[in-house]
Amino acid sequence: MLIEKIKSEGLSHLSYLIIEGGYGAVVDPRRDCRIYMDMAYEKGAQIKYIFETHRNEDYVIGSVELSHMTGAQIYHGAELPFAYGNTASDGDVFEFGQVRLKVMKTPGHTFESISLVLYDKAFSPDPIGIFTGDALFIGDVGRTDFFPDRKEESAGLLYDSIFNKILPLGDQVLLYPGHGAGSVCGSGMADREFSTLGFEKRNNNSLQFKNKEEFVRFKTQEKHSLPPYFSRIEDYNLNGPPALEPLYPPKPMPADHFEEAMQKGMLVVDTRSPEAFAGAYIPGSLAIPLHMLPAYAGWFLPYDTDLGLIVESYQDLDTAQRYLARIGYDRVMGFLEKGLHEWAIRGKFYETIPAVHAGELQRRIRDKQDFTILDVRTREEFAKGHLPGAQHIYLGHMPESLNDIGSSRPVTTFCGSGQRAIIAASILKKNGFKDVEDCLGSVQACSRGVCELVRE
Amino acid sequence: MLIEKIKSEGLSHLSYLIIEGGYGAVVDPRRDCRIYMDMAYEKGAQIKYIFETHRNEDYVIGSVELSHMTGAQIYHGAELPFAYGNTASDGDVFEFGQVRLKVMKTPGHTFESISLVLYDKAFSPDPIGIFTGDALFIGDVGRTDFFPDRKEESAGLLYDSIFNKILPLGDQVLLYPGHGAGSVCGSGMADREFSTLGFEKRNNNSLQFKNKEEFVRFKTQEKHSLPPYFSRIEDYNLNGPPALEPLYPPKPMPADHFEEAMQKGMLVVDTRSPEAFAGAYIPGSLAIPLHMLPAYAGWFLPYDTDLGLIVESYQDLDTAQRYLARIGYDRVMGFLEKGLHEWAIRGKFYETIPAVHAGELQRRIRDKQDFTILDVRTREEFAKGHLPGAQHIYLGHMPESLNDIGSSRPVTTFCGSGQRAIIAASILKKNGFKDVEDCLGSVQACSRGVCELVRE
Amino acid sequence: MLIEKIKSEGLSHLSYLIIEGGYGAVVDPRRDCRIYMDMAYEKGAQIKYIFETHRNEDYVIGSVELSHMTGAQIYHGAELPFAYGNTASDGDVFEFGQVRLKVMKTPGHTFESISLVLYDKAFSPDPIGIFTGDALFIGDVGRTDFFPDRKEESAGLLYDSIFNKILPLGDQVLLYPGHGAGSVCGSGMADREFSTLGFEKRNNNSLQFKNKEEFVRFKTQEKHSLPPYFSRIEDYNLNGPPALEPLYPPKPMPADHFEEAMQKGMLVVDTRSPEAFAGAYIPGSLAIPLHMLPAYAGWFLPYDTDLGLIVESYQDLDTAQRYLARIGYDRVMGFLEKGLHEWAIRGKFYETIPAVHAGELQRRIRDKQDFTILDVRTREEFAKGHLPGAQHIYLGHMPESLNDIGSSRPVTTFCGSGQRAIIAASILKKNGFKDVEDCLGSVQACSRGVCELVRE
Amino acid sequence: MLIEKIKSEGLSHLSYLIIEGGYGAVVDPRRDCRIYMDMAYEKGAQIKYIFETHRNEDYVIGSVELSHMTGAQIYHGAELPFAYGNTASDGDVFEFGQVRLKVMKTPGHTFESISLVLYDKAFSPDPIGIFTGDALFIGDVGRTDFFPDRKEESAGLLYDSIFNKILPLGDQVLLYPGHGAGSVCGSGMADREFSTLGFEKRNNNSLQFKNKEEFVRFKTQEKHSLPPYFSRIEDYNLNGPPALEPLYPPKPMPADHFEEAMQKGMLVVDTRSPEAFAGAYIPGSLAIPLHMLPAYAGWFLPYDTDLGLIVESYQDLDTAQRYLARIGYDRVMGFLEKGLHEWAIRGKFYETIPAVHAGELQRRIRDKQDFTILDVRTREEFAKGHLPGAQHIYLGHMPESLNDIGSSRPVTTFCGSGQRAIIAASILKKNGFKDVEDCLGSVQACSRGVCELVRE
Repeated sequence: MLIEKIKSEGLSHLSYLIIEGGYGAVVDPRRDCRIYMDMAYEKGAQIKYIFETHRNEDYVIGSVELSHMTGAQIYHGAELPFAYGNTASDGDVFEFGQVRLKVMKTPGHTFESISLVLYDKAFSPDPIGIFTGDALFIGDVGRTDFFPDRKEESAGLLYDSIFNKILPLGDQVLLYPGHGAGSVCGSGMADREFSTLGFEKRNNNSLQFKNKEEFVRFKTQEKHSLPPYFSRIEDYNLNGPPALEPLYPPKPMPADHFEEAMQKGMLVVDTRSPEAFAGAYIPGSLAIPLHMLPAYAGWFLPYDTDLGLIVESYQDLDTAQRYLARIGYDRVMGFLEKGLHEWAIRGKFYETIPAVHAGELQRRIRDKQDFTILDVRTREEFAKGHLPGAQHIYLGHMPESLNDIGSSRPVTTFCGSGQRAIIAASILKKNGFKDVEDCLGSVQACSRGVCELVRE
Repeated sequence: MLIEKIKSEGLSHLSYLIIEGGYGAVVDPRRDCRIYMDMAYEKGAQIKYIFETHRNEDYVIGSVELSHMTGAQIYHGAELPFAYGNTASDGDVFEFGQVRLKVMKTPGHTFESISLVLYDKAFSPDPIGIFTGDALFIGDVGRTDFFPDRKEESAGLLYDSIFNKILPLGDQVLLYPGHGAGSVCGSGMADREFSTLGFEKRNNNSLQFKNKEEFVRFKTQEKHSLPPYFSRIEDYNLNGPPALEPLYPPKPMPADHFEEAMQKGMLVVDTRSPEAFAGAYIPGSLAIPLHMLPAYAGWFLPYDTDLGLIVESYQDLDTAQRYLARIGYDRVMGFLEKGLHEWAIRGKFYETIPAVHAGELQRRIRDKQDFTILDVRTREEFAKGHLPGAQHIYLGHMPESLNDIGSSRPVTTFCGSGQRAIIAASILKKNGFKDVEDCLGSVQACSRGVCELVRE
Repeated sequence: MLIEKIKSEGLSHLSYLIIEGGYGAVVDPRRDCRIYMDMAYEKGAQIKYIFETHRNEDYVIGSVELSHMTGAQIYHGAELPFAYGNTASDGDVFEFGQVRLKVMKTPGHTFESISLVLYDKAFSPDPIGIFTGDALFIGDVGRTDFFPDRKEESAGLLYDSIFNKILPLGDQVLLYPGHGAGSVCGSGMADREFSTLGFEKRNNNSLQFKNKEEFVRFKTQEKHSLPPYFSRIEDYNLNGPPALEPLYPPKPMPADHFEEAMQKGMLVVDTRSPEAFAGAYIPGSLAIPLHMLPAYAGWFLPYDTDLGLIVESYQDLDTAQRYLARIGYDRVMGFLEKGLHEWAIRGKFYETIPAVHAGELQRRIRDKQDFTILDVRTREEFAKGHLPGAQHIYLGHMPESLNDIGSSRPVTTFCGSGQRAIIAASILKKNGFKDVEDCLGSVQACSRGVCELVRE
Repeated sequence: MLIEKIKSEGLSHLSYLIIEGGYGAVVDPRRDCRIYMDMAYEKGAQIKYIFETHRNEDYVIGSVELSHMTGAQIYHGAELPFAYGNTASDGDVFEFGQVRLKVMKTPGHTFESISLVLYDKAFSPDPIGIFTGDALFIGDVGRTDFFPDRKEESAGLLYDSIFNKILPLGDQVLLYPGHGAGSVCGSGMADREFSTLGFEKRNNNSLQFKNKEEFVRFKTQEKHSLPPYFSRIEDYNLNGPPALEPLYPPKPMPADHFEEAMQKGMLVVDTRSPEAFAGAYIPGSLAIPLHMLPAYAGWFLPYDTDLGLIVESYQDLDTAQRYLARIGYDRVMGFLEKGLHEWAIRGKFYETIPAVHAGELQRRIRDKQDFTILDVRTREEFAKGHLPGAQHIYLGHMPESLNDIGSSRPVTTFCGSGQRAIIAASILKKNGFKDVEDCLGSVQACSRGVCELVRE
C-alpha cells in the first residue's frame, strides 16, 4: 500500500495517489493530470477511482481528463448538480487490494464536502488515515465563507464534521488534507505536511475553542480573500473543464513579433525575479514572479486575452504554462525569445524601477520626505506592524483602487519581502504612475533591525 | 547554423532539423514529431518550413501534426495529389537567417522526389550540403521498384538525378540522406552516417557503373522486400495520417484481464529478447524483439486488431508504442503487468522453445537426423551460404507459406543471429507446429567455425 | 518541515532526510549517499547531522562519506567502539529551524540502538514522530538474535524500549522505522510504509503479547537467517567503509574478453529474468535476478573475486552496481556487451534450463516419476505447505548442502514464484548437476489450484 | 561508425568521440570527462585511445582522468616534454573496427600539433574526415602568436601544414576542428559547425591569400587576446591537472554565512543576467553572466581564493561549477541560498546599477553632458564603430587600467550588447567608482538606428 502526495506548488494544493494490488485511486487530481496516470502505470497499477472531496474553487480539477485517460470512475458529493461523474454517499465503500476507502460526509467548507477514511484490510478495523479535503488542515480548518448568507450554518456543519465525525476516528489516524501552508484556502496552516488526528486535536489552534459557539463565532468573523477567478473555476469544476492535452509549449517569439503582438492586445506577464524586472522591463508588462503565478495571476489576468511570457530560462516556460493552466488560463501564445537581452539589443525601449533598501525608507521617513509608501499586504499582515504613514491597499484590490493612490508624488511599494511589491510597482507603472520604487526586503528586512514598524 | 539529425532506430529513418537565426526547417519528420518542436523551441527557434523529400512508404510522416503544433508550412513535390501542404517546384528557394534551401527535383525513387540544396548565405555561392531523401544514400542509391511497370523509366530518372544534378554540386557537399544502414529502402548502405558527394562519387558501389545503361540494368534487376503495410502508409502519407497526440501509455493489465482480452481477440506481441521468449512464453503470442518492431511488425500485424504487449521493463513500453505508431499501429491496448513472471505465478500455462546451438545442428546434419532447418533470411543472404539441406522461406513470407513446411518432423528456425528465428519459431507455434527449436547464434555463430555452410 | 523517505529496494532499507530552515539531518544513510546531499542542496539545505540508529548489519552505512561531502557531524549510540563519529546520549537534543530531535536509548535489537523523537518546536510539546531504526517496525519489531548468548537480555531490553519508552509517547506519533516489508531484519512487516504508534499498539502482532515474559519467549524462539556477508558489513560499519566515489560504471566487454576473464577467475552474475536465464545462459554463471541482488548476493559472492555482469539493458547496470556496492561488493569489472545475443553469435557455448509448469509437476508426482523436487524457501514457508515428497534446503544454505542432493536423478527447483528456484538451478548446474529444471510459478501457481500442497 | 561532437559552450571547444566495433577514441577531451565514458559505455564501446591534437591553452585537458576511468592510452605530439601519455609520430596508425586514424604532423599553432586523418576501412583508400585541432577551423585558421619570438616560423609552418598536408587530402574530406565560433583561439570562425576541406579551400578567408608570404604577413600581424589564466592551464596540460572527481556541488549558504565568508576573503561571482545584477547586487561582487564564465572568468579570478556564487536557479550551479573547473578553478565553496531575495529580506545592504538605453546616451552626447562612455570591446570591434568621445579599454585589461578612467564624473559602460558592460560596471563599483551605469543593448541597439557611431 502506497500513498503518493502530489503537490502543486504555489496553490499548495495536495492531491493523493493511493496504490495497492495493481489498482489505484486519486483524490482531487489537478488539471495537468498525466502525472497520476504515469506514476500509477509505472508501478503497474490501473487507476480505478477518482474522488473529489468537494467542488474546488482555487484550481481546475483534472477528473474528467484523467478519467478519459485511464477509464477510472469519478465520485463526488451529492449536494451539487455536477455535470459529470457519480455520487458518493455517506458510508459508501470502495476497495482494491488491501485498501478500503469509506466515504464520510463532512460538510462545512462546502455543503457537498466528503472525506475518505482509509483502512488497511490486513489490519482492520482501526482506520489508518483520512483524506479530509478542505475540512481539516494541518494547523487549521477549512474556510466557511463561500456562502455569505449561510456562514453560521456552514461553520456549524464544519464543527460537527470535525468534532463528531473526523476526530472520533482516533488519535492514531494519519491526516491527508487538500492543502498545505501557503494556500488561499486557509491561514495558519503548519509548514509541515504530515500530522495525525491526535496531534491536531491538541495542537491545531482552530480546534482549541471551548465549544461550538466559540468556534462558529470565530469562523464567521474570519476574513479571506476572494479572487475574481474563483467564479470561472467554480463553473469549470461543476461542468467539466476543457481538456488540457495535447498541450504545446509557448512559441519563441523574436522581439519584433512580440512587440507586434503586444500592439494587438497581447498581455505580457514577466515571471522573472523582482531584481531582474526592476533592472529592466518592457513598458506595459505585468510583473508576476514565477512562483507567485498560481496565487496572483487570477487576480489580474482576464481569461479572454492572449498572454505573452517573459521568463528567465527555457525551463521556466513549462512551469509558467502549467501554473496558468491549473487556474484555467490557456491562451499563452509565446514567450520573448532570449528575454530582455534580445529586447535591449534590438534597440527597443525598456524601463527600470529603482530598488530601495528598507533602511533608506526609514531615513526618508525620519527626514519627512514627501512620498507614498504603498503597503500591499493583507489587512492582517498590515495590522501586525507597518511603516509609519504607510497607505494600505491589498495587492489583489489594486486594479480597482488606483484612484486612491496619489500619482503626483513618488510611490514606494512595500510588502513582506519585496515580491508582491514588484507586482504592485508594475501595476502602477502600467497605469501611468511615473515615479515608482519597490522596497526589496520590505518588512522582513525591517524585522532585522533595519527600520521600525508601528501598529494601528 | 545547426543541423540536428533525428534518427528513428529500426526504420533507420533519418530526419533533419535545421536551425538558424530564430527559425527552423524540418526535413521528413516522423509521426511522433514533438521532438522537432521541442528541440527547436528550446533553442529559441520557430519551425517555419517542413519539407517532404517524397511520399514515404515505410513510415508515417509527421508533417500535418507538426504543422498543427508549430504553424509551419509543408512543402512537397508536385507530381502527386497530396491532400495537404504546398507544392515545391524546382529552383524554389526558402531562406531563414543565413540558411538558403533550394529545391532540386530528383525523381527516380518516386516521381515527385525532391532534394534540398543547402547554402550558407554568409559564404555563398558554393553549396555546403544536400538533403537527398531516398535518391542518394551513403553507400547506396534509392530503390526504383515501386512502379513495377515503369522500372526502367524510374531507374533512368534516378541516374539523371544523381549524375546530372546532385553530383555536379561538387565534391565538398555534405550528404544528408533519408535513411541509414538497416533500412528496407536500400541495401549496401554504409554503417556510417556522414559522407560527402566527393566521397560517394568514388566509393559508393552503386555509382561505379560504366554508364547509364549499366546502372539501369542493375537497378531493374534488384529485388527488394515489399511489406504489406506499405499500402496503408502510402495512403496515410498522401492524405494525412490521424493525429498521434494526446498519446496515452498502454494500460497495465493483470494476468486475468490479459487472458480475457486474448480470448476476445487481442493479439499479443512479445517484445522480449529471444532468450526470454524461448525460456517461457504465452501460447498464441507473437515474438518480435523490441528493436525489430519497426522492421517486422508491418509484415505480421493487422491494423484492425487490438494489440497487447509483453515487455522486459516499463521503459520499453514507450519505445514499443512509438515503434508501432511510426508505422501506423495505434491500437495498443495494454501490457501484461509484471510480464511472464505474473503469468506464471497465476498458474497460467506457458510454453518454451528450446534454443539449440549451431554446433549441435552441425552434429545432427552429420548424423543425418530427420528434421527441418527453416532458414528465414532474405534470398540474398541465403544465397551467400546456408546449412546443407536447409529450407528457405523469407520471414516476411511465412504467413502465406506455412503449408510448404512439413509439420510432421521437428523444425529448427535459423537466420542471421537467432532473432528473426525466434519470430519464425513463434509463428510456427502459433500455427500448431509442435516440435520447434530456434538456433541462437545461427549463421553468425557458424562463421566462427562452429558449422559449415554451403552455397547453392 | 519536510521528511523525505529514501528507500533502498531489495534491502527494504528506509532512510530519512529531514529538512527545515536551511538545514538538514539524515537518519541511517546508505552507502551511495550522494542522494541525500543532492536532495538537501536542491532545497537549499545544508546537512548538519547524520544519525545512525545502530550499527547496521545488512547494508554498508554511508555516514563517513556523506560527512566528508557535506561537513555534517555523525552521531551514534555509546555502547560500541565506533572508529568515527560522536556519541549521542539519552536525552541529547539536536535542533535546526523548528525541528527538535531528541535522542532516546532504545536497546534490544543491538545494545547501542537509539531512536530519535521528533518535535515541531512551533507546536511543542507533543512529539509528532519517531525514528525507531530496528526497534519497532510497521507490523513487527526488531530481531534480537544477534548476540546468541544474550538473547533473553536482548528481548527484554527491546520490550522495555518499546513498551516503556516508545509507545508512551502517544498514539498520535508518526512511526519512521529503519526497514519496510521484505527486509531480512524482521518478518511480518506490513506492506505499508506509514503508520502511527497508536495504530501499531493495537494492530502490530508483536505487540499483542500478554506480558513481557510472553514477548521474550516468542523473541528468543524466533529463527532468522544470518547471511555470511553480515560479518563484513559489521566490520565496515564499525570502522568506516571505503569511499564509494568516484564510482565508474562497469566496462562493456566483448564476448572474447569476457570469456578470457572468466577463465582467469571472474565470477559471472547473471541478473536477467528467470525466463531469460532459462532460455540461454553461460555455463558457470550464477543467476541472481536484478531485484534479488540485495537480498541474495551476500549469500553466494566472495568479496575477493572479480565480478562480471550480464544484464538485460544498459539501464540495469547502474542498479546492479549500486545494489552490490550497498552490501560491500566493489569488484564489478565489466559486463557482457550486448549480452547473451553477443555470446551466441560469437559461436560460444550456452546452455538452457527447461522451465516446468507446476501442473506438470503435479502430474509427475501422481505418475510417481523418479525425480527430486528441491524446495529452497525458508523453513517457515516450507512448513506452511509444500509439494509431496519435496526435499527442503534453504537457498542460502545450498553451497554447503550440495552433497545432500542426489545428482543421479533429475532435479526440479521450486520456491515461492520461480525466482529463487532459478538461483538454485544455476547453482546446481555450476556444480555439475546435469538434469535440472526450474518451476516458474512454483507455490504461487499451486495456490491457484494448479497443484496440491501438503503440510508436515 | 559514429562520431559524436561534444561541445563545451562558452569555450566553443569541440571534442570528439569516435565509436566503432565496440571500441572508441576521444579527441581532445575536456576536464569533466565522464561524458565520454558514459556515451561510449552506453553504446557498448570501450575507449581505447585518447588523442591530444596539441597542448591546449584555453581549457584543462581531461586525458589523464579519462585514461584513469577507462584504461585508454593517451597520445600527443612529440615536441613537448609531456609528463604523461605516449608520443604519436607522423604516419602512426590506430585502428579499431572499420576505423583507421592516421597521425599527421601539422605544426604551426604549436610545434607539437598533430591532426588525425580518418579512414573508413570498408571504403579505403579515400580519407573521409580529419580532426585538425587548432590548425584549421571552419572559416579561420589557428593563431600563431604563442611564441612571440618565433611568429614567422609558426605562421610558415601552419601554411605548410594546411596547404601541403591537410588540403591535399581532397575536397571530400569532412572537417572536425578543435573550436567553433566564439572561441578565443581564432576569430572569423563560421557560425556553422560542419564543413569540408573543399568548402574551406574556396570559402575560408584565411585560405585566400595569394601565397605563403602574404599568409605569413597576415598571421604575424594578427592580434589576439592572451588571458592571464593561460599560463596555469599550460602547466596543467603539460604535467597533468588534478583529478576533478569526486566533484561535490557547492554548498547552499544562508545570507549570514555568505557575508562572513566574504569578510574572510571569499570572492563573490554573480552569474545572473545583467538586468538582475543591475536591479540589485551585493557590494563587492563581480558580475559575470553564466554563459560568459568560460571566456571571462580567467581574466579576473585568482586561483588561490575561495569563490562564492550567486545564481538564478539551482540548475545553474552545476553549469557554473563546471565552467569554472574547465579552466582550472576548483575552489567554489558555496552559493547564496535563495539568492538576492534572501540577502534583501535579511536586511543586508545591496546596490543597483541603473541601466541606460542607447538612445538616452545619444541624447546626452548631443547635449554635451559631462560623462564618460567606457567601451570595453576589443580593439577591432571598437575600430569598426563606436559612440563619439567613447574611451576604449578592453574588458580583460580593466584591472590594470583603472587609473586611466576618471572617477570624478559619471561612467557609462558600453560594449556589444550590454553583457560585457555589466562586468565592467561591477569592476568599477568594486573599485570605488560611485556613479556607474551600464548600457543594455549597447552597440547592437545603436545598429537599429537608435544612435550614431563614428569610426576612428
